[in-house]
Amino acid sequence: MIIRVYYEDTDAAGIVYHANYIRYCERARSEVFFQNNIASFDPNSHFVVTKIEANFIGTATLGDILEIKSKVLEIKKASTTILQEIFNDGKKIFDAKIRVAFVVDKKPSKMDEKTINFLSSIKEF
Amino acid sequence: MIIRVYYEDTDAAGIVYHANYIRYCERARSEVFFQNNIASFDPNSHFVVTKIEANFIGTATLGDILEIKSKVLEIKKASTTILQEIFNDGKKIFDAKIRVAFVVDKKPSKMDEKTINFLSSIKEF
Amino acid sequence: MIIRVYYEDTDAAGIVYHANYIRYCERARSEVFFQNNIASFDPNSHFVVTKIEANFIGTATLGDILEIKSKVLEIKKASTTILQEIFNDGKKIFDAKIRVAFVVDKKPSKMDEKTINFLSSIKEF
Amino acid sequence: MIIRVYYEDTDAAGIVYHANYIRYCERARSEVFFQNNIASFDPNSHFVVTKIEANFIGTATLGDILEIKSKVLEIKKASTTILQEIFNDGKKIFDAKIRVAFVVDKKPSKMDEKTINFLSSIKEF
Repeated sequence: MIIRVYYEDTDAAGIVYHANYIRYCERARSEVFFQNNIASFDPNSHFVVTKIEANFIGTATLGDILEIKSKVLEIKKASTTILQEIFNDGKKIFDAKIRVAFVVDKKPSKMDEKTINFLSSIKEF
Repeated sequence: MIIRVYYEDTDAAGIVYHANYIRYCERARSEVFFQNNIASFDPNSHFVVTKIEANFIGTATLGDILEIKSKVLEIKKASTTILQEIFNDGKKIFDAKIRVAFVVDKKPSKMDEKTINFLSSIKEF
Repeated sequence: MIIRVYYEDTDAAGIVYHANYIRYCERARSEVFFQNNIASFDPNSHFVVTKIEANFIGTATLGDILEIKSKVLEIKKASTTILQEIFNDGKKIFDAKIRVAFVVDKKPSKMDEKTINFLSSIKEF
Repeated sequence: MIIRVYYEDTDAAGIVYHANYIRYCERARSEVFFQNNIASFDPNSHFVVTKIEANFIGTATLGDILEIKSKVLEIKKASTTILQEIFNDGKKIFDAKIRVAFVVDKKPSKMDEKTINFLSSIKEF
């Protein structure tokens, strides 16, 4: 996924505000669901982030075009862990392992078969 | 209402990103409802912004402490217009007339008496 | 310009948070500069928003794909006014007249010829 | 530090958007600098986040009042690690170990004595 850095993404230090890389990762995860016509949100069942281990390695500035590469690391019954890396002009500036848990009626729940199959099929996005 | 400017509020120009003043105004409107124990949001009935006329007069930078002053200008059956001004160190840097409409089940609707009475009572906040 | 609505854009009412339409408009204005290799920001000279008249007509929800159409309405010596409209599935949900002023060394200033010529050339974007 | 949850903080799932907890943590770190009249940002020297290990344990909704408790875990020559926990009505909903590195002229650098002394003095905030 390609993301342009706009003013709203930057802060007074002249670089992308750190928490925005976490947002970009969420855009990439949602986008793969949207593009495959699998609703990533349903009032009854959806994913929530439960754990993030992130490294902020480099920076990005206004107008930069970033690439996000994502890889499904692990699929468990009720959660999945995804590695997401962000590159600026070919150089890695951020990576994170992000675990998302499946929630049905606000309770952690086993994923349905369709969701597991979809996650198994995408591997990288 | 007093608001501190944090990194997330600023952009690469070193000043508060313009759209964030619109957010600050919403915080002030919500806060007056919260503080009076009147829910500003209900799945069935709540306000939505329908019109904004805003003037960006000055700037604010990281760490600045801003004051928002709000005044109910007009109360109609299904909407109200509020003047919101933001001051930085006593100097006005932003003002906006913001019209919010009452919505019930996603349709513009007459406000209930409790809401009208509350708006009539607050005048300035 | 096409913009996808992600989680970060929505709020508890289930729709795009109103101030985010103002952000989308800024993305579109910046993008036309980026795409023409005209830096929209320079520590010494750049644009700042000075006036917004916005109408919030409809809504957008998670996953929607919005189109922003922009038109240069007026070019003055030190500012320009742009009409920006946002469409959701062909239906207009937002429009705004946005005036941006040219700033050199933090002071309102006449635009340089290159900037005026560029604005004159784009008309719609 | 006390933080009220506003519309802008929530998303279509009706809860605080996960990346916003990372923003709240930054507010708390900046605030302790502001309150002690130690500039947390200087064009030449400031902190950048280099690592986050975060656990999202519970949720928060519109109008909730959150408490952020922060503790300096470790002070090294060029970085410091801070534990930040967020509580909603007394219940922990988020924690993170956040490492920030000191940067002078955009390069990782040893902290000056004043900054080290300040970090040593605050312990919890």
